[in-house]
Amino acid sequence: MSIPLKHFKKGSAKPELPEDGLLRLYCMHFCPFSQRVRLMLDAKQIPHHRIYIDLIDKPEWYREYSPLGKVPALQLTHVAGQPTLVESLIIAAYLNEQYPQRPLYPIDPLQKALDKILIERFVPVVSAVYPVLTCNKNAPPDALENFESALDVFEQELTKRGTPYFGGQKIGIVDYMIWPWLERIPSLKYTTEQHYELNGQRYEQLLKWCQLLAQDPVVKLSALDAQLHAKFQQSKRLGKPQYDVGFED
Amino acid sequence: MSIPLKHFKKGSAKPELPEDGLLRLYCMHFCPFSQRVRLMLDAKQIPHHRIYIDLIDKPEWYREYSPLGKVPALQLTHVAGQPTLVESLIIAAYLNEQYPQRPLYPIDPLQKALDKILIERFVPVVSAVYPVLTCNKNAPPDALENFESALDVFEQELTKRGTPYFGGQKIGIVDYMIWPWLERIPSLKYTTEQHYELNGQRYEQLLKWCQLLAQDPVVKLSALDAQLHAKFQQSKRLGKPQYDVGFED
Repeated sequence: MSIPLKHFKKGSAKPELPEDGLLRLYCMHFCPFSQRVRLMLDAKQIPHHRIYIDLIDKPEWYREYSPLGKVPALQLTHVAGQPTLVESLIIAAYLNEQYPQRPLYPIDPLQKALDKILIERFVPVVSAVYPVLTCNKNAPPDALENFESALDVFEQELTKRGTPYFGGQKIGIVDYMIWPWLERIPSLKYTTEQHYELNGQRYEQLLKWCQLLAQDPVVKLSALDAQLHAKFQQSKRLGKPQYDVGFED
Repeated sequence: MSIPLKHFKKGSAKPELPEDGLLRLYCMHFCPFSQRVRLMLDAKQIPHHRIYIDLIDKPEWYREYSPLGKVPALQLTHVAGQPTLVESLIIAAYLNEQYPQRPLYPIDPLQKALDKILIERFVPVVSAVYPVLTCNKNAPPDALENFESALDVFEQELTKRGTPYFGGQKIGIVDYMIWPWLERIPSLKYTTEQHYELNGQRYEQLLKWCQLLAQDPVVKLSALDAQLHAKFQQSKRLGKPQYDVGFED
């Protein structure tokens, strides 16, 4: 990392990065989709630069890399034309194929397909919890209920698999791809009126899983604590997301 | 195929299929997502049974196979537990890995990722054209404009690639995954007031591509003509989708 730890804004000059052939991850510090790619890079110990993008006031030059202005985006500076990949799950699959160390997807095509379907079933969890996480006052009154029903699928699946991780005895792709949202749930204790926490009985296996994940050395590299997530989310609610709040100290 | 060519409805008994270990594709005759899987199966010449599902009045037993009631679903009867896969793109990737004949995805992880990103960029085409295709009277007035802007990406990409197909000199995964919607565009000539057709100058390369695709022996196996698509879509507009309209003769 050779660039300042802050989010690039509209009007900012392009970051000056060495032409060292390292991957460049364009991301936002609190973005769970960006964290998915970070987990893949860290699990595979792939050196890279991270460039943080202000998602409200995007720098003009960012569209050169990500035509739709989305994060995460991964630029391959060692390849002719320095192409940029987008979509967290497509980037994750690319990294898994291109960097064979510590494979995270199952080798068996069927198990791989079943894991991808499970990750797809996480979409309703994300959609339901998003307005709550972002403290949106227009969040539908049943948002938390919908979130819990969607999350039940994962409690049931973990119970069915009967292993500590979705990946079995080791962390696998499902574990890392859903973790960023589970990391953010404890922030609801600080941001919701009812000081929301997951029900210990209803999510017994999933809460054990959360504890295990939180201790994973790879997870620790990108983990932010619940109070910091809450601080960011509250700044969002006030209409002024403080992207750099994590870099203050 | 050993089952009657009609869509199974609520109240219908489960189809009686031989335990021959063949794949079972649950689909709807006019569903473009189902057609994606059909194209994969036909391209790889994988024998299978097709079971057609009435999407308005779904048979009660269908949830055993597809918990969310979605089509397409592919049941693997030769595998212990006879699991069912869902999501057209996940099924396509599974078939490509499990059945190595006629590989459709690029081997190179980067080119594969770029093709998957391109397929992802087809989502706005699908979203924009859906209300128009289904003759929805509440279609936003700019739906066709949005559709055309989203489709421009594909005209530009085909021009940039400079090859007859997105897959190069041969049909590849992008070609088959986007084809079902392009097959349906000519039906707009019959269903829209302005007798909509793609502009020959704006979509010069894409229209040539459409002609090539329409001649592909694999495409021909599942192709339905524009008037039949129009007939189905009009039945949908009247609130009574005639799923079996293609099986009348």
